[in-house]
Amino acid sequence: MLVLVLGADGYIGFPYLIGLCSRNHDVIGVDNLKRRTLVSKVGGKSVTRIYEPYERERAVNEYFNGEYRFVFGDVTDYHFLYCLIKTEEPDAIVNLAQIPSAPYSMRDIRCATETVINNELGTLNLLFALKNIDKTIPVVQLATLGEYGYVNWGELPEGFMEIEYKGRKDVVPVPKQPSSFYHCSKVNMTTFTIFATSIWDLKFTEIYQGVVYGVSLFEEIDQRLYTRFDIDADGFGTVINRFTAQAVINHPLTVYGKGFQKRGYLSIKDSIQALTLAIEKPPKENYRAINQFSETFRLNELAEIVKNVAKELGYNIEIEHLPNPRVEVEDEHEYNPVNKTLKELGFKQTQSIEDEIRETIQIIEQFKHRIRRELLIPKITWC
Amino acid sequence: MLVLVLGADGYIGFPYLIGLCSRNHDVIGVDNLKRRTLVSKVGGKSVTRIYEPYERERAVNEYFNGEYRFVFGDVTDYHFLYCLIKTEEPDAIVNLAQIPSAPYSMRDIRCATETVINNELGTLNLLFALKNIDKTIPVVQLATLGEYGYVNWGELPEGFMEIEYKGRKDVVPVPKQPSSFYHCSKVNMTTFTIFATSIWDLKFTEIYQGVVYGVSLFEEIDQRLYTRFDIDADGFGTVINRFTAQAVINHPLTVYGKGFQKRGYLSIKDSIQALTLAIEKPPKENYRAINQFSETFRLNELAEIVKNVAKELGYNIEIEHLPNPRVEVEDEHEYNPVNKTLKELGFKQTQSIEDEIRETIQIIEQFKHRIRRELLIPKITWC
Repeated sequence: MLVLVLGADGYIGFPYLIGLCSRNHDVIGVDNLKRRTLVSKVGGKSVTRIYEPYERERAVNEYFNGEYRFVFGDVTDYHFLYCLIKTEEPDAIVNLAQIPSAPYSMRDIRCATETVINNELGTLNLLFALKNIDKTIPVVQLATLGEYGYVNWGELPEGFMEIEYKGRKDVVPVPKQPSSFYHCSKVNMTTFTIFATSIWDLKFTEIYQGVVYGVSLFEEIDQRLYTRFDIDADGFGTVINRFTAQAVINHPLTVYGKGFQKRGYLSIKDSIQALTLAIEKPPKENYRAINQFSETFRLNELAEIVKNVAKELGYNIEIEHLPNPRVEVEDEHEYNPVNKTLKELGFKQTQSIEDEIRETIQIIEQFKHRIRRELLIPKITWC
Repeated sequence: MLVLVLGADGYIGFPYLIGLCSRNHDVIGVDNLKRRTLVSKVGGKSVTRIYEPYERERAVNEYFNGEYRFVFGDVTDYHFLYCLIKTEEPDAIVNLAQIPSAPYSMRDIRCATETVINNELGTLNLLFALKNIDKTIPVVQLATLGEYGYVNWGELPEGFMEIEYKGRKDVVPVPKQPSSFYHCSKVNMTTFTIFATSIWDLKFTEIYQGVVYGVSLFEEIDQRLYTRFDIDADGFGTVINRFTAQAVINHPLTVYGKGFQKRGYLSIKDSIQALTLAIEKPPKENYRAINQFSETFRLNELAEIVKNVAKELGYNIEIEHLPNPRVEVEDEHEYNPVNKTLKELGFKQTQSIEDEIRETIQIIEQFKHRIRRELLIPKITWC
């Protein structure tokens, strides 16, 4: 089928479209290259060397059966998005075109506004375009597990929950408790999407994803096929990737606060496996919610895992606790999101977190001269 | 005290600041006059004749002790809002600067986007400005009862609720089930506000308000003090006001669908009474939620009330059911929002709905030549 990937130049978007092309799907990838600009703005750069969109396009077309075409464009431009969908008639659409950084959104009013406008208007435009063109095209859209907040519930449901209130039962959207303006923007995307899909009979899957880590989709055959790998603490580097970068330059692993923060995690391989299942198996309902992660860990556990894997590879790294720049629960707490739907779709974790981290370290070792030490320590605080 | 009123030219904003000045508060009123433009855009105009901002300013200063100053400006411009608050050092702020129309937000992608950007960025800017200038200034911000949706619960709580889920109890924000992009934008304002007030220790009251009706604040002493009165079905005319306009031109009262839709209502007098209580009695907590309404009615009941009051005044009006342009529950349903906080603050309904509607009809009779008949029938549909 022909898949339109919005956000095709991002950390997940690029390997995802490679995965689709390797499965003989054709792909049109859209991006405004904003992620590249924003990483430069916060003083970072991708640890892996990344290639220009046309070089990436050529590389994908050299190695895979599915045809790949890159289109420069901005999903916050309704006219652009409408015309593209109208002309190309994709069989499915994946919306990954979001600014994904919590600390970036907390920098100042401009960064908060930029995040909110980019993420929310992209979603609004997509909803209206499909209403006006073809309501049956299935869409997979990236949400985040962080929308729910880190509540002390026995179990965190997928999208909706049956609650009891004063003796009555009802099924309601899970109440959202976001912890940054980025997370707020994702909650708001969900609010728009639940509303619009219900009245317009659209077919959306929202992926409440955990934190993604790793760099390798499969044994890399060409450097042009590497995805980006960000490690900046104030922007786009998420925790495991930052730890692995710290390991290869002999920098202590920096845990924020007490380190009991528990989250869902999955490798980039598994993220793409899951997103592919979601697109190849569209929902019957108007709105399907999938909690997407392989395992849950506390920060302290992750630091130990990275430390141990790094040790096998010859790195002797300390773990250091920094004052927490975020406002979040860092004491012992429960965290148990359901991931029933993903398993029903046939999802299986590809390999252990230790193997994934080993592979990641081995790949980024060759790029270690590109890691800027001063970017590994956060400066942006929540308050 | 000095109160900064954002949205000072609106239906509620203008009589609200008059009320404040009559209670010896000084007021700075900010508006970009967008409501005037938008009503023109949808083909409407205020039934009451409304005056230019400087004429309104002069009239307020002629009659009341509190000093009133109008400032033209846009709350979506952070720099403007920041400088104003920094310079004027208000004792309290009221944020009414929203585009308040559900049908307008459903017209097309441009109107949805305009509503979302205006309402959400105004809120974001206000949150950041207070974080950066003075966290202790209390803010009263307009939300809507419509954020909760029209759920079949025994009771609809204020802002937060204790739920039971799989045997565990927790207090969570009431799950939101908005029914237009306008309502989504209000939900999103709430999402930003709950998050930011909690981490930054701000003092916000959000007013989950019902549908406001009526035109008179007190016996009007000067036509320049009238607020606007919109009756356009596709924009800014809410139901009771539209019914009263229909009555005075002998147009059938148009009920959408079966007419069992039940909502909370309050008169403009009572809205202002309640908003004044909220600003004069600021909260101790960072985020206070108030459900603001006097009574609940079904559409059919309202139509009967307006029909009967109009009959006393010599109008023989029919009730007509139109196909419902909205997607909403129109069968018999429960609707019972709590309004505990408002009563605790000392709120009392000023007069009966019948008396309020009688007064409204008597005022707008003198403007009946300004009512455009064709604006009373909705053309915008939800789907």
